[in-house]
Amino acid sequence: MAGSTFGKLFKVITWGESHGAGIGVVVDGCPAGLLLCEEDIQIFLNRRKPGQSRFATPRKENDFVEILSGVFEGKTTGTPISLLVRNENQRSHDYSDIASYYRPGHADYPFDEKYGFRDYRGGGRSSGRETIGRVAAGAIAIKLLSQMGITFLTYSESIGPVSIDRNRFDKDEINNNKLYMPDAAAASEASSYLEKLMTEKNSCGGVICCEVTGLPVGLGEPVFDKIDASLAKAMFSIGAVKGFEIGDGFAAATSTGLENNDAFVTFSHDAASTCNTACLYSGKLSKASNHSGGTLGGMTDGSPLIMRAAIKPTPSIASKQRTVNKAGEEIEIEIKGRHDPIIVPRAVVVVESMAAITILDALLENMTSRLDRIVEFYK
Amino acid sequence: MAGSTFGKLFKVITWGESHGAGIGVVVDGCPAGLLLCEEDIQIFLNRRKPGQSRFATPRKENDFVEILSGVFEGKTTGTPISLLVRNENQRSHDYSDIASYYRPGHADYPFDEKYGFRDYRGGGRSSGRETIGRVAAGAIAIKLLSQMGITFLTYSESIGPVSIDRNRFDKDEINNNKLYMPDAAAASEASSYLEKLMTEKNSCGGVICCEVTGLPVGLGEPVFDKIDASLAKAMFSIGAVKGFEIGDGFAAATSTGLENNDAFVTFSHDAASTCNTACLYSGKLSKASNHSGGTLGGMTDGSPLIMRAAIKPTPSIASKQRTVNKAGEEIEIEIKGRHDPIIVPRAVVVVESMAAITILDALLENMTSRLDRIVEFYK
Amino acid sequence: MAGSTFGKLFKVITWGESHGAGIGVVVDGCPAGLLLCEEDIQIFLNRRKPGQSRFATPRKENDFVEILSGVFEGKTTGTPISLLVRNENQRSHDYSDIASYYRPGHADYPFDEKYGFRDYRGGGRSSGRETIGRVAAGAIAIKLLSQMGITFLTYSESIGPVSIDRNRFDKDEINNNKLYMPDAAAASEASSYLEKLMTEKNSCGGVICCEVTGLPVGLGEPVFDKIDASLAKAMFSIGAVKGFEIGDGFAAATSTGLENNDAFVTFSHDAASTCNTACLYSGKLSKASNHSGGTLGGMTDGSPLIMRAAIKPTPSIASKQRTVNKAGEEIEIEIKGRHDPIIVPRAVVVVESMAAITILDALLENMTSRLDRIVEFYK
Amino acid sequence: MAGSTFGKLFKVITWGESHGAGIGVVVDGCPAGLLLCEEDIQIFLNRRKPGQSRFATPRKENDFVEILSGVFEGKTTGTPISLLVRNENQRSHDYSDIASYYRPGHADYPFDEKYGFRDYRGGGRSSGRETIGRVAAGAIAIKLLSQMGITFLTYSESIGPVSIDRNRFDKDEINNNKLYMPDAAAASEASSYLEKLMTEKNSCGGVICCEVTGLPVGLGEPVFDKIDASLAKAMFSIGAVKGFEIGDGFAAATSTGLENNDAFVTFSHDAASTCNTACLYSGKLSKASNHSGGTLGGMTDGSPLIMRAAIKPTPSIASKQRTVNKAGEEIEIEIKGRHDPIIVPRAVVVVESMAAITILDALLENMTSRLDRIVEFYK
Repeated sequence: MAGSTFGKLFKVITWGESHGAGIGVVVDGCPAGLLLCEEDIQIFLNRRKPGQSRFATPRKENDFVEILSGVFEGKTTGTPISLLVRNENQRSHDYSDIASYYRPGHADYPFDEKYGFRDYRGGGRSSGRETIGRVAAGAIAIKLLSQMGITFLTYSESIGPVSIDRNRFDKDEINNNKLYMPDAAAASEASSYLEKLMTEKNSCGGVICCEVTGLPVGLGEPVFDKIDASLAKAMFSIGAVKGFEIGDGFAAATSTGLENNDAFVTFSHDAASTCNTACLYSGKLSKASNHSGGTLGGMTDGSPLIMRAAIKPTPSIASKQRTVNKAGEEIEIEIKGRHDPIIVPRAVVVVESMAAITILDALLENMTSRLDRIVEFYK
Repeated sequence: MAGSTFGKLFKVITWGESHGAGIGVVVDGCPAGLLLCEEDIQIFLNRRKPGQSRFATPRKENDFVEILSGVFEGKTTGTPISLLVRNENQRSHDYSDIASYYRPGHADYPFDEKYGFRDYRGGGRSSGRETIGRVAAGAIAIKLLSQMGITFLTYSESIGPVSIDRNRFDKDEINNNKLYMPDAAAASEASSYLEKLMTEKNSCGGVICCEVTGLPVGLGEPVFDKIDASLAKAMFSIGAVKGFEIGDGFAAATSTGLENNDAFVTFSHDAASTCNTACLYSGKLSKASNHSGGTLGGMTDGSPLIMRAAIKPTPSIASKQRTVNKAGEEIEIEIKGRHDPIIVPRAVVVVESMAAITILDALLENMTSRLDRIVEFYK
Repeated sequence: MAGSTFGKLFKVITWGESHGAGIGVVVDGCPAGLLLCEEDIQIFLNRRKPGQSRFATPRKENDFVEILSGVFEGKTTGTPISLLVRNENQRSHDYSDIASYYRPGHADYPFDEKYGFRDYRGGGRSSGRETIGRVAAGAIAIKLLSQMGITFLTYSESIGPVSIDRNRFDKDEINNNKLYMPDAAAASEASSYLEKLMTEKNSCGGVICCEVTGLPVGLGEPVFDKIDASLAKAMFSIGAVKGFEIGDGFAAATSTGLENNDAFVTFSHDAASTCNTACLYSGKLSKASNHSGGTLGGMTDGSPLIMRAAIKPTPSIASKQRTVNKAGEEIEIEIKGRHDPIIVPRAVVVVESMAAITILDALLENMTSRLDRIVEFYK
Repeated sequence: MAGSTFGKLFKVITWGESHGAGIGVVVDGCPAGLLLCEEDIQIFLNRRKPGQSRFATPRKENDFVEILSGVFEGKTTGTPISLLVRNENQRSHDYSDIASYYRPGHADYPFDEKYGFRDYRGGGRSSGRETIGRVAAGAIAIKLLSQMGITFLTYSESIGPVSIDRNRFDKDEINNNKLYMPDAAAASEASSYLEKLMTEKNSCGGVICCEVTGLPVGLGEPVFDKIDASLAKAMFSIGAVKGFEIGDGFAAATSTGLENNDAFVTFSHDAASTCNTACLYSGKLSKASNHSGGTLGGMTDGSPLIMRAAIKPTPSIASKQRTVNKAGEEIEIEIKGRHDPIIVPRAVVVVESMAAITILDALLENMTSRLDRIVEFYK
């Protein structure tokens, strides 16, 4: 499984299982000189911690991060940053019987086929706890990007069938409710829906939206390493993601060229209502709309980068389900243990982290695109 | 732009501009011993050639491929396979005035910002002709995979607002109509829609679906190199893709765990109606449904891999559009030249090619997952 | 510094500074099913520990390794293996004044220029302690390769001006003396030389030889990823290495084709005196000599792989030296602290580890070279 | 063979066999804005062409290069540069009988084992003609680096047993003799030696030295991607290289710390006799000697980078040799055809090319090392 490494220049390597000694990440390629302390990372980890609302597993995970390397006198040194979160409070006995069968919607079966056996405790490497490493690395990327005026706004756009109303969009509301929805009414409705699901021993999914502003024009490499393609890989690498869109996404497929093309306008042009054109890096020109979601030809176009990830319902549910055991017999199971009826709220910070890691990597690579800028750099 | 390289072990490097000397691809890492001749590749290139229907640009491009290396006595040697398609019939004068302004929906503006200038002839590197290299490499991957019983079925699922009816699904119809739709009635309706768009100097997009059967269980590496993630990157690297789904995709976000989980069943179980369970590699077990689209935990689960890509409307339209020129003035333009009112039908083979390249790469990497299999291999 | 990652399929990422919280490594891509416990790794770490002879720094470093992930029920799971060695006993005050100047022969100056500042405690990331991660990963690779009959013999071939006498070569002697020389007389002479250097506050280097037997034919990829090239990179990535040879190395440059070419012979041919031809994997054919050092065209040829690395003298010496301080003034310094008069004996296991990591990676990649073998694998 | 790709950001992919349709290279990641025409590349290709002296094969190869992509209006566009050299004048019949046996010193045997068969015409992919792609890419890198004041001086330091005398070193002499030696007397002596070898149907090797001046301080990434390690890989990837040294190389192994450490001195210090200290990028400080060969801790230190590659004797000799044929019988052979008695002079430009490709890649990666410089870049 040489697949726990992400990125070209800002390289992120995660490791760890749900019930092993700990979870961690190594960031190889973080530029030197960034002020960084454990608290910078901890506040991001806290956003994904369970036990914060009644819709998340009541497991208590403190998830304290320790910086093991790469920081000296409060600043990153340019050497690999190793971060460690020790596992605690794993109630292993809750998971013991799942060793004998394949849980529907989980990785159990392909894991056994691919590797010959699996660490069945709490999902092992496929546990949601794996995302701790991503969020820790994302915290570093987000802090670094913020120093260049690049900011992230990430939220739950829908929970099950309940979508936010764009007319009620209130970004200050996002951190006001446990579901990270920018619409208090939708959050309330979604809460009721979740209550009902819980009594039914069921679960649901949702859609997470991430908007990035302040990006320079030209990030992303045309052809295979388009910024869209790198972001798509980043998002689909998150466990439960089943769909991804940039800009209008699937809606673009039913649109027409006249509708979908974003007209370029001069910067003074007052067109900022639906698209925050003030974020344009170069100040050179802007767009009258942002159907493209901030990319053209696989490169950022100066408009906000807008993306959406569809999250499937949590597969661990307490209801009866049919499956097959390792002896090849069809059986009925009821999965015990403490599980989230929905992972969308906790995945919000994971989506933001993966977006930031991807964008920082593209931003570093983009420095090498023009000879004149390289000559100037080394002058 | 170190972004024209794709893949880890089966590595594909494309090059070439619309109006340069030619377009090509190097495949570095193709296993030795595959029977391969130019005709094997040509039949795939012909599927993406323009001029085959009145909905595609009337440009005539012969696109004859030449194998320059890597094949000896009719078989691949294991060395890089270099393929060349010379450009011909470029009517450069059609494109001359677009040098002065930025076309809406095109890569012109970020290209200029990123590289300082651009090859403005016919889209340069961002031209649809870039996909010739992908299709040529895909033809090799598809031929190789077919020898292991892995097959691809790719088609237009919708054209603009016209979707196929799953009850009328007829895979033999796909090659019967110019739109590659598996439903003759939908194809007819879509044709009428396209006729109307053409008179309006407009364009539209659509959705392409790709189904892969016969896959071994366990392809894809958990965490960042999930098969889902690699496919997402592959698809989003195609010029006009704005959305991507695996299995139920965005619909999974409004589903529940009880609905979305696919129950495992024994192989004898008669559940093959919606999901072609006969494709299971190991024969060990199957699933009663395939909401997951053939992947669990980022690995293939033995069911058909099902994915969808949303294609935006062709941005090149003959209608008047507003934009900005290089002098920073707002202007109105009408793009001349011969353009496709829709690229979906021609992109079908591109989607299939990228899927095959990605899957072959995962299949090679998967060989190294288990020590017992490695020891057996080298015995 | 995205440079702490090594390998393509068996990927090794090291991290950690001499005086930070610890030193570690993540191995991403280790095949599943290898029996592995901490003791397997500890015995390799003990070979590089200081304090074992009077020629090594008297610092006491226990260097106990902890497996944090990737092993379950005593076997590797295929997921990343994270290994941690906590730092202890760092006498930081010994290093405090070196912050103000650039030590000759050390990385201080380029570190400051490249990153803007440096972790000056004990060499920081450039410390010899960085090799702990390499040796821990190497221990895993060596154990895995041993199960395929691949074995390593690594030793000091020369210490300063004292070389072993090939006529006295005794492989059992290697672990009998603190210098890891396969010749007791040379070891004794080298010891006297080192005693003299120590009284003179001086240091010296040497040459390490590594022989690998039991290799399948064909490891390594022609052109850029030749096994020779990958090994050269691996060896030159070790801090003090200034030269590298395969087979006859520089001596080949003064030889002739008639002398240097190794005649192929049938396997029964009795030619095994200088070259252990019994190691041939395929049993198909052998060579009458082994000037090539076991590679032809960048691939293993079935003969023992023989390589040599030249190690420079330890730059940290207690004698007076001229240098420049950060204020730009020429000064005289005497470096305090506990330093090895020679690092060659401790580097023996580092050379062996890097060779093993490189060879295992090539062995995994080689599985994908032939279509017939791939088809057979997936049958 | 996914091994024909080199480099991380300035990525070079070579392809082609000796007797296929042609030889070529794709450069993916060349910065935009470099003035480039075919003549820029042709002058480098001419330096490696055969038929220029009586010590090189009398084969006539015109080796005209064609730029197929990546250049527009005389400048690189940032997109992949594809270069093609058609093969001509292959006298295939010269090579027909070598299909039946394994030539000593050649890649024939491992090629057959690894891939199941081989392109036996003229060495196929292992032919010296493969280096055409390297030299073409190197020409681009060297031109780009020259615009930053980085220059290369590459020459034959020894031919068989004949070494240059450093007291007679004359860099203007290098292009005055067919052996590229910077010492006319040595060149004359070496010529006589080669004449004698030719009458004896024998061959020899030699040592090539490459000096690079004008390098910024800090190129190369500590740990695995040290500039030394990347150069070692680059050099050992050239067919006949058996040894590599940086700075004093193997001589450092017999030196002492007091001798080997280079004292830092202020820039005004008059120490430039053996080391061209004027090349220091930062102007901040210099070294009194250059035993290290311009690197410290894997990064450039501002002094000239000095490296040496040992080349083995040409394995193709007309003398009788013993070998084994594909039927497993021991036979005697005499290799026919037109072969170089020495490849060292023709390899000089290959060494220079690989050095330049490696250094340019490191120079691009180094741009991302410091946050302050990144912020400044994007301001």
